Amino acid sequence: MQHQIEFFYFIGSTYSYLSVMRAQALAAKEGVALVWRPFSVRTLMREQNNVPFATKPVKMKYMWRDLERRAARFGVPFDGIPPYPIDPNETANHVATLAAREGWCPEFTQAAYRAWFLGKQDPGTEASLRETLGSIGQDAQACLLRAGEEATKQEYLARTDRARQLGLFGSPTFVVGEEIFWGDDRLEDALAWCRAQ
Amino acid sequence: MQHQIEFFYFIGSTYSYLSVMRAQALAAKEGVALVWRPFSVRTLMREQNNVPFATKPVKMKYMWRDLERRAARFGVPFDGIPPYPIDPNETANHVATLAAREGWCPEFTQAAYRAWFLGKQDPGTEASLRETLGSIGQDAQACLLRAGEEATKQEYLARTDRARQLGLFGSPTFVVGEEIFWGDDRLEDALAWCRAQ
Repeated sequence: MQHQIEFFYFIGSTYSYLSVMRAQALAAKEGVALVWRPFSVRTLMREQNNVPFATKPVKMKYMWRDLERRAARFGVPFDGIPPYPIDPNETANHVATLAAREGWCPEFTQAAYRAWFLGKQDPGTEASLRETLGSIGQDAQACLLRAGEEATKQEYLARTDRARQLGLFGSPTFVVGEEIFWGDDRLEDALAWCRAQ
Repeated sequence: MQHQIEFFYFIGSTYSYLSVMRAQALAAKEGVALVWRPFSVRTLMREQNNVPFATKPVKMKYMWRDLERRAARFGVPFDGIPPYPIDPNETANHVATLAAREGWCPEFTQAAYRAWFLGKQDPGTEASLRETLGSIGQDAQACLLRAGEEATKQEYLARTDRARQLGLFGSPTFVVGEEIFWGDDRLEDALAWCRAQ
């Protein structure tokens, strides 16, 4: 059996909210380690001319309804449509990259998504990040500095390049070896793939 | 409990293959009637500037792999990538519209998809349609004539307009009352929604 799923995600992806809130516990139940990989799906989507919602109001309306239904089904809190899109500079993802390096990525990402979906804030603003970092016991000032360093941005770019090499095009994507599973609705499939290896 | 799901689909949609082959039996097991609704998703997607695969090779490559995996999971035959796209004039969908009116839509659609996915033919060519119609015991000549009549095309347009009013943007879409579920991977959710009503 495969014991690891790489969880590629982007803070700014709406459907990723469901995975961010439910994937860790589900994987743990199965004895599978979830390795959190923040990456710039926005960069890949621009390269691929893949605009999911901004120019597609019918599809976007559906997305919010589908997300609401699935959140209810999984017991993930949902309280109406949050701001969208958010974080044009991808700052929250730079912080997530730092967090992944230092071992506090899940709690940071979950707190950032709560600020976004429940607090109805853009989770990438400095004010929101200070609040989020403080709430998980991190030194906000120090983290923001380290997240803004060239080394962190390079790490983020490198991970994005790996995603590009793996054939990713969306968030969330679960990677098991070379097999990729796109969408929160393929989480169970990815876990089943692990069991079958 | 709701006893009916409207199954909006378009012969030419790749993922719809899975639903075409598995949805009827699954719904029947639950005592839910599947009402087959062929519609011009291509028209709606063009209106909405929604190009899923033609200009997105990375996403398209993933789609074929995802379809192959899910086909294996559901016991739906898959034997390599079929021709794509197909049927520029939507002739197969005109025949499906006639078939829906006359009560033989499921068997026609399933036979057309087998010709496409397993026979590796464009299922909308006259030769393919003759073979498909013959294989299900229909008078091919008569059907092709009736399918080409203005009344059939108008019916197809009217159904497409209903899909537009319901907020559809893709195929397959399962409609339960006013609730829409997009994707073969929402079939079980649509059935669960029926049970809950």
